[in-house]
Amino acid sequence: MRHLIEPEDLTLEEISDLVDIGLDMYENPRVYNKACDGKILASLFFEPSTRTKFSFDSAMMRLGGNVIGFADANTSSAQKGESLADTIRVMGYYSDIIVMRHPKEGAPKLASQYSSVPIINGGDGGHQHPTQTLTDLITIKKYKGHIDGHSVAFCGDLKYGRTVHSLIKTLARFGNKKFYLISPEELKLPSSLKRQLIEKYDVELIEVNYMEDVIDVVDIFYMTRIQKERFFNEEDYLKLKNSYKLTKDKLKNAKEDMIVMHPLPRVNEIAYDVDTDKRAVYFEQTELGVYVRMALITKLLEVGPYVRG
Amino acid sequence: MRHLIEPEDLTLEEISDLVDIGLDMYENPRVYNKACDGKILASLFFEPSTRTKFSFDSAMMRLGGNVIGFADANTSSAQKGESLADTIRVMGYYSDIIVMRHPKEGAPKLASQYSSVPIINGGDGGHQHPTQTLTDLITIKKYKGHIDGHSVAFCGDLKYGRTVHSLIKTLARFGNKKFYLISPEELKLPSSLKRQLIEKYDVELIEVNYMEDVIDVVDIFYMTRIQKERFFNEEDYLKLKNSYKLTKDKLKNAKEDMIVMHPLPRVNEIAYDVDTDKRAVYFEQTELGVYVRMALITKLLEVGPYVRG
Amino acid sequence: MRHLIEPEDLTLEEISDLVDIGLDMYENPRVYNKACDGKILASLFFEPSTRTKFSFDSAMMRLGGNVIGFADANTSSAQKGESLADTIRVMGYYSDIIVMRHPKEGAPKLASQYSSVPIINGGDGGHQHPTQTLTDLITIKKYKGHIDGHSVAFCGDLKYGRTVHSLIKTLARFGNKKFYLISPEELKLPSSLKRQLIEKYDVELIEVNYMEDVIDVVDIFYMTRIQKERFFNEEDYLKLKNSYKLTKDKLKNAKEDMIVMHPLPRVNEIAYDVDTDKRAVYFEQTELGVYVRMALITKLLEVGPYVRG
Repeated sequence: MRHLIEPEDLTLEEISDLVDIGLDMYENPRVYNKACDGKILASLFFEPSTRTKFSFDSAMMRLGGNVIGFADANTSSAQKGESLADTIRVMGYYSDIIVMRHPKEGAPKLASQYSSVPIINGGDGGHQHPTQTLTDLITIKKYKGHIDGHSVAFCGDLKYGRTVHSLIKTLARFGNKKFYLISPEELKLPSSLKRQLIEKYDVELIEVNYMEDVIDVVDIFYMTRIQKERFFNEEDYLKLKNSYKLTKDKLKNAKEDMIVMHPLPRVNEIAYDVDTDKRAVYFEQTELGVYVRMALITKLLEVGPYVRG
Repeated sequence: MRHLIEPEDLTLEEISDLVDIGLDMYENPRVYNKACDGKILASLFFEPSTRTKFSFDSAMMRLGGNVIGFADANTSSAQKGESLADTIRVMGYYSDIIVMRHPKEGAPKLASQYSSVPIINGGDGGHQHPTQTLTDLITIKKYKGHIDGHSVAFCGDLKYGRTVHSLIKTLARFGNKKFYLISPEELKLPSSLKRQLIEKYDVELIEVNYMEDVIDVVDIFYMTRIQKERFFNEEDYLKLKNSYKLTKDKLKNAKEDMIVMHPLPRVNEIAYDVDTDKRAVYFEQTELGVYVRMALITKLLEVGPYVRG
Repeated sequence: MRHLIEPEDLTLEEISDLVDIGLDMYENPRVYNKACDGKILASLFFEPSTRTKFSFDSAMMRLGGNVIGFADANTSSAQKGESLADTIRVMGYYSDIIVMRHPKEGAPKLASQYSSVPIINGGDGGHQHPTQTLTDLITIKKYKGHIDGHSVAFCGDLKYGRTVHSLIKTLARFGNKKFYLISPEELKLPSSLKRQLIEKYDVELIEVNYMEDVIDVVDIFYMTRIQKERFFNEEDYLKLKNSYKLTKDKLKNAKEDMIVMHPLPRVNEIAYDVDTDKRAVYFEQTELGVYVRMALITKLLEVGPYVRG
């Protein structure tokens, strides 16, 4: 039995397969719409996340399966003092596969040790969020044709954003070599991660202050939300917030086939006038996330193309 | 692509069709029970309403479809500062049709401008609730044989009740000419609406103080709940509350084929002893509401009879 | 139309049938996976209980049916002052069968008087929880081969635990004659129940202080959780809590084919090292609970084996 706790649980070949099957599901949804007939996904959100929950719920339903679960922990038996191990063992009798989001780092790993069904990590604290990484990769594959060989800029909160950490590492595993990092001083990529990337994958990390410095040279521009409370003081926030806001104007010098990505939800770090630019693919990214999750579910349940193929 | 934001979005012919198809679904549910196989309804209740939510959920499931969504806004991404436009665009990737209830007037209209899938307004503040109107109309058709040519009394809170506003206007569009209005002074039908009804549809509006004044002449008696906090003072409330309570005794002089309607939930404005009177159709009204919503969903999704016919 | 409000609503023969069909469903789930196609279960939890709710949701889905409902009462129309009778009548139009948990004793009984569809009591206050009893019985049947003729120990909170009250009575109905009762002074089986058991079913009730006194002679050891706040004082709690904790060590003298049961969730009354003992069947008990609920749903809906047989 396989689980997905962190992107490293999958080989590069497996990730490529998931992306390709996800794209096939996107093109030919009817082929797969009974693949999970009679199966049940338990969707356990110990911490709320509408978007991730709905993406999984939709994925399971588009495969013909059913969903049980909760959107926040208040209604769960955890309140009665039950251990996570017991909760997971019991949920394995009610379902065929479990996706869980949990505020504590490592909770999905622990769960996988007790579970009788596959566990998917839907986000554990600031730690991992592997299906967001798969979502990002399927988007890159669809719009750039391949996952490797790109120069990529990451902009915003690079310190706390687990999305960025997982993606940059996985892109490095796939052989991408050049990353531009754009963030305020307080929110730089952690040095331990920088060291790991350089030593293990021999990548080039270029830290710059302004998006204008690099927007004309990159293939992929990955934006993230900066939460106001991450700044050390209000003054810094007011001074800097427009530096990390992408506008149509700033896009002028970008390559014609560059793509703008964002894990969503956005607050105001991408101006609304960017939405109609053909390089903006963040909504399509959300859509593709459903299909790569469908691919993942069928892989872990060993149904559909994985069985028929 | 069509949306249903207010009853005026539908022509009289379309409304009649929805009512007829709804009645056919009620009579022959098995014909339709796979019409929405593989489709997903997103049921987004930014304001709670168990009854409306369950009615839609049940309608979609009786058509063979699936449902995702939330019963109140606390678990939604709106909390993270996302705009309604973004939420709706994203939900369009997770679902095939959206029903939403929102505390702000106009929110569903705004949503429809950004949505890639049909939007149904499940109630926006004190503004519109078009599927309640469809529910009322299918009930009138079933129990009175036709939608036009009735004299109708409305009783209770005629000032704030969007149900009454929508229904009276739609009945006027269908050519009904005589309406009796029974309410305390503070809760009369707004004069702007009265003017519109008279000028545009040439109807007769007769305001009376007591239900006993008209109960013997009307074909349809439409009750609504009066919320205690709508009264200017406690004294008025205590003095008047029994005037707006329908009892078996008051029904004595009503026509044999008159019908008593209520959008439910009721608190105490209809005495329980009325429930067993054959003229009381408010529970059947709730039931028929599921079927007219089924008809609406198939129309907006262009599946089932709309495709096969 | 049948309801299940308390175990006595079913004859011994009916209970045996449910257990046997549940075991057949466990062995051959595919035979039944469309038995409730097109049917809707309304799962109304006026009081939260993740475990019972998920067990029913899973049961309905494994039969091919759908589920609507709420996990706690905050989102229900009860808040608008609607009576339970009205809520139930309306829910009967949205669904084909209702399971409800309610904090007030007798609420499901009342509901059954107004409902147009079968009602299953999913727990009403400290009163009844008949599907837990069915869950216990199917477990006994599977692991001990038959429901009658066992000597059974109950340990923990025997005063407030409705699970114990229902099971001991039903086991007595099935002809079991010898029960050992292990509990602190404050949490003994109520004398009225003791009297009833002795007078009506002629059973032998043996109260002991320590589990070690009887663990070597019983066939079934039924553990329950003792809530700290049930004790009169902290000192008693600290003194006694280990007396009511089952450990691997205490199991040493138990029969080889004895079984340890627990309705779950557990807190710490069964040590984790007991989990791997083959006599521990409390997780399997949870699993079997899904199947006996499947049997119950098909019985009350008169579908599947009950119709075909």
